[in-house]
Formats: sequence, structure tokens, C-alpha cells
Amino acid sequence: MKGLTETQIIRVLTNEFASQPGLPLGFNDDVSAIPFSSKSWIIVKTDMLVGSTDVPPGMTVQEAARKAVVATVSDFAAKGVRPRALMVSLGLQAPARKTTVQAIARGLRQAAREYQCKIIGGDTNQADDLVIDIIGVGFANPKTLVRRIGARPGDIIAVTGPFGKTSAGLRLLMSRREKDRVKYPFLVQAVRRPKARLAEGIVLAKSRAATSSTDSSDGLAWSLHQIAQSSKVGINLHTIPVAPEVETFAKEYRLSALDLALYGGEEYELVVTIKPERFHDLKKRVPSLARIGIVEKKPLGVVAHLAGKRVQVKAQGWEHFT
Amino acid sequence: MKGLTETQIIRVLTNEFASQPGLPLGFNDDVSAIPFSSKSWIIVKTDMLVGSTDVPPGMTVQEAARKAVVATVSDFAAKGVRPRALMVSLGLQAPARKTTVQAIARGLRQAAREYQCKIIGGDTNQADDLVIDIIGVGFANPKTLVRRIGARPGDIIAVTGPFGKTSAGLRLLMSRREKDRVKYPFLVQAVRRPKARLAEGIVLAKSRAATSSTDSSDGLAWSLHQIAQSSKVGINLHTIPVAPEVETFAKEYRLSALDLALYGGEEYELVVTIKPERFHDLKKRVPSLARIGIVEKKPLGVVAHLAGKRVQVKAQGWEHFT
Repeated sequence: MKGLTETQIIRVLTNEFASQPGLPLGFNDDVSAIPFSSKSWIIVKTDMLVGSTDVPPGMTVQEAARKAVVATVSDFAAKGVRPRALMVSLGLQAPARKTTVQAIARGLRQAAREYQCKIIGGDTNQADDLVIDIIGVGFANPKTLVRRIGARPGDIIAVTGPFGKTSAGLRLLMSRREKDRVKYPFLVQAVRRPKARLAEGIVLAKSRAATSSTDSSDGLAWSLHQIAQSSKVGINLHTIPVAPEVETFAKEYRLSALDLALYGGEEYELVVTIKPERFHDLKKRVPSLARIGIVEKKPLGVVAHLAGKRVQVKAQGWEHFT
Repeated sequence: MKGLTETQIIRVLTNEFASQPGLPLGFNDDVSAIPFSSKSWIIVKTDMLVGSTDVPPGMTVQEAARKAVVATVSDFAAKGVRPRALMVSLGLQAPARKTTVQAIARGLRQAAREYQCKIIGGDTNQADDLVIDIIGVGFANPKTLVRRIGARPGDIIAVTGPFGKTSAGLRLLMSRREKDRVKYPFLVQAVRRPKARLAEGIVLAKSRAATSSTDSSDGLAWSLHQIAQSSKVGINLHTIPVAPEVETFAKEYRLSALDLALYGGEEYELVVTIKPERFHDLKKRVPSLARIGIVEKKPLGVVAHLAGKRVQVKAQGWEHFT
């Protein structure tokens, strides 16, 4: 029997809930918001890591727990908001071994330290699958929070780093050949020890030069389409930011480096649009920032012009249930 | 191999995190808090429902989704705080059927309407088990929030309703005999359509007459022990509040009605301690409030004196991984 895809599930759910008034960010942004005062919103995000689908072979439980936090922090990073507190809801398979619980605790604590947020509570349950649901809570001034909506024609499209590392790394982890993993440690590490661009996101938001932003946890192509759709603009890329090791890897395995970079996922870079007159200045403060294209008025999706050829970028990405 | 119990897992986790300073409610209360200003805390709670362990036969997916919200709202009720917003993290088995997703959405919306809170966002994942993690967010004045700590010798122990319904109802749902379920609809409904005592909890907190409070989701005995331990007092009961239908059910099935009432779980009544001079007045405003005992100075656990006999109430309750 054919089931719903993740996108279809989300559509069924949001159709049911979206009629509620007073949701300042709607259902389609990286985080949710609760207005507290005119100057302050409570920002909340929940991101669930599931053992059977999100933890590849070769990733330890400690790494999985750390990564669960990174995924939630990354959404805060995209909005330029610092998460203050984390809640942890766990589902553990029985019997629950002490070493497993300790490894989870270590991974969570490690990530909390990296991003300077406190673990303030949680819930523990028995389940048939490993489940680590991380809830982040923070405060934001609605004026500095960077939304998905807001990109304007002429804005520069930029990313905080190169892409394709996690889709290549995931292939290496799924492969049986140990020596391939040894050859590309940087790609394997991208999956096992991802980093959220929190510091960069906060600088971008404070600068007020970013007009829209999202993280790339569902892949670069998907993120670009999200910004294009939310802001009702088109996106024209002059380059696809492929990581150098991904080029090498793709050549060796006869894969398309562009596809690895565009249609991967769980790659926690930020995809932002920036006021053109501010890019040069901002680049000094966020050195990893790379210009990859421009926002266009006509909402004709996402297009790339590479070596004189026009390439349509598909609205595809990391999706569960496929 | 013998694994850790839920209590042991929580101990491992809190040992790892409890060294963090500045947790106003610690790890042992019904909810977590983030100080926002001197007059306002952000209150957060996460409660995960898991299909394989929390959804008995005969409970529909819609009922399970509604119950997941009730479990989170109940913790807010115990603190006298209204949850303003809910986040929903879902784990769904593949293939995900549209009717299942719609039933979940209906259950969530129904509960959100009952407790007047908004669903503001969430996350969807593929998993080997049904997972519905409900996160509640609210605001509280730290002065009116009722903690687990705070019970004083001489305070009256009271509950918002009778007990044993869910442990009896669960037995009926697990039984193969359809006619037993028809005979005790009230007990079956207690499991399938539980209610959180939010209105009662808010009145209790506003009155400033409640000195401590917790919900009874892990059972009456466990809740009493939590209050006794947190407040460093003893508890002396003069009655065990058994629901009348539970008495009848227990007689028919030759079970101990007292055990059903004491050691059940997922029964969302409130267990509170109340300043003795205020009880009479408060009872008028919360008619379901029933006096069951008194707080004593000596921290000798929880004891009941029933028909002249002294009964030690064990620190036992609903626990996963057992």
C-alpha cells in the first residue's frame, strides 16, 4: 500500500491547524513563535531524531544524541535566535542499558555546552525505536528575527558553507568498504559530527542585512525553493556550492557532484538572502559566507546558469516516507 | 539481560544535567521553567505518548492523540498554569495512511479546543512505533505557581476526584470479554477519554491556599510520595479515595480496590496540600475536592489508617521498563 509522503502528511496536519488566527510565523517557518510582548516573542522548535531512519551505521549513540540537539539549534541559527533552554523527550528500547543512557546524556551535554544552552527537563518512555525529541526555547525581538518570507528582487543568495558533504558521507557510512571511509574522513565527520551555524546566524540577524533565511536540513534545493515560495520570488544561481572533497568523491564513484550538493539533507548550513549593498561588509564578519546567486522578481522557481547552460533545480530534498 | 527501570534512567540523566545552576524548578517538578523576568517565567513541558506501550487495544488513534495532549495539559494543571501553545512532534510508521494522519489531527484539535490552547508547530518523522510528543508552553507568575515542594505539617491532603478508574479500565480493555466493557463504560471511558483538571488547578493556584501540588499520572501512591519527598514531610491518610464503580469492579474480579486506586497510573487527577483554614472555602469553588489525609512533620513516608489498621503505602506507581 502506498502511504503519504512527509510533505503530504504535513499538508494534512497544517490544513487542520492553519485556520487558527494569531500565529505570527505561520506553520512554514523554521521555528514557531508565541507573542509575549511587542518586543519579545517566545521561540520554540521541536525536532525528533529516530533511530531506525536518522542514525546510519557507524554513528554512535552519543553522536546521535549530539546531532539531535544540532538539528534543533540549526533552526534557531537560521532565525538568528539563541536557544536558551532545551527539553529532551526520550523513547528507549527495552532493556535500557546504563551505558546507552549515559552515552545519550554525554551527547546531549556536549551539544548543550557547544551552543551554550541549558537542558532543563524532559520525559522518558519505553518505545520500539530510539527516539530523541529535542525541544529548544528562546526569546527573540520580532524586529531582528529573520523569516523565510522577505527575500526581494536583487538580493544576493548566499550560503554559510559548501554542500554535498552529508549525502556523500551517508553513502560512505552505508557502504561496506571500510577503506573508503578512511579515505574521506571529512565527509564521514560531516554526518557524524555536524555543526549548527549559530554564531553566523546571530551575526546575520543582528546586521539586519539578511532579508530571509532558512537552514538546509532538508537539502540546498529544498531550502532555495522554500525561500522562493515563501517570499514569492524566483531564484537564479550562478554556481552550485559543491565542497571540494565532494567533487573528488563524485568523480571516483561516478556520481553527479551537483546532485549530491543540491538534493542531500541534514546539512546544517544556512541559506540566506542579503541586501546587495551590505554583502561585502557582511562577508568580513562571516568569512564562510559565499554568494551563489540572485533573487529575481518573476516567481519561476529555482534556476541555475552553469557554464552557459540553464538548469532547472527541482523542489526535491530529504524526505521521510519515500 | 536486565535493563534499567524508568526511575533509574531518569536518575542517570538528571545526575548528568542537575549540576547546571539556575534551574528554578529543578528536575523533579511536573514542569520546567525558564526565568524571563522577576514576574514571569516561561513554563515548558514535554510528554511523549508511544503506541506500543501507551495505547491499549480498543483505543482509537484519535483518542490516543487527544490523550497525548491531556497528559501534557495535566502537568500544567497541577501547577495552576494555563498552557498557551502546543507543539507536536510525530513519529509515524510507514506507510502513513491519510485516514491515520487525519485522525491524529482531529484528536489534537479536539484537545486543543477543550483546553483553549493553540497548536503552533511541530515535526514529522518516520519511525518504527507511533510517537506523539506534545510540548506545552505557557507563562506563569512564580509567586502563584504551585510546586511539589511546599507542603507543611498540618496541611490537608486533597484530591480532585476518586481513583482506580484507569487501572480498572485498562484491565477491561486488555480483556477479551466484550461484555465486561459494556458493563463498566465509565471505567473504559476513563482510559479512552481522560480529562485534565486544568480549571480546578488554576482556581487552586489563584487561591494561594494550595501549598504543593502534582498530577497523578504515575498513580496516587507515587504522587503522594513525590510530595512527601520533595517537601520533606510525612503523609497520613485517613481514607483512600476509591471510585464507586471501582469498588464494584474489584469485588466482581476479586481484586484489591485499594491497590487499583493507589498503584494505577495515567489518572489525571490533582494531588494537593492545602492550608487547613482555607479548605472549607476552597471546597465551595472546587466541589470535586476531597480531603484524604494530613501532612505530618516526621518524614516517615506515606501511611494510611483505615478502619483502625495502619497500612504503609509503597512508593510504587506506573513505570515504563518494568
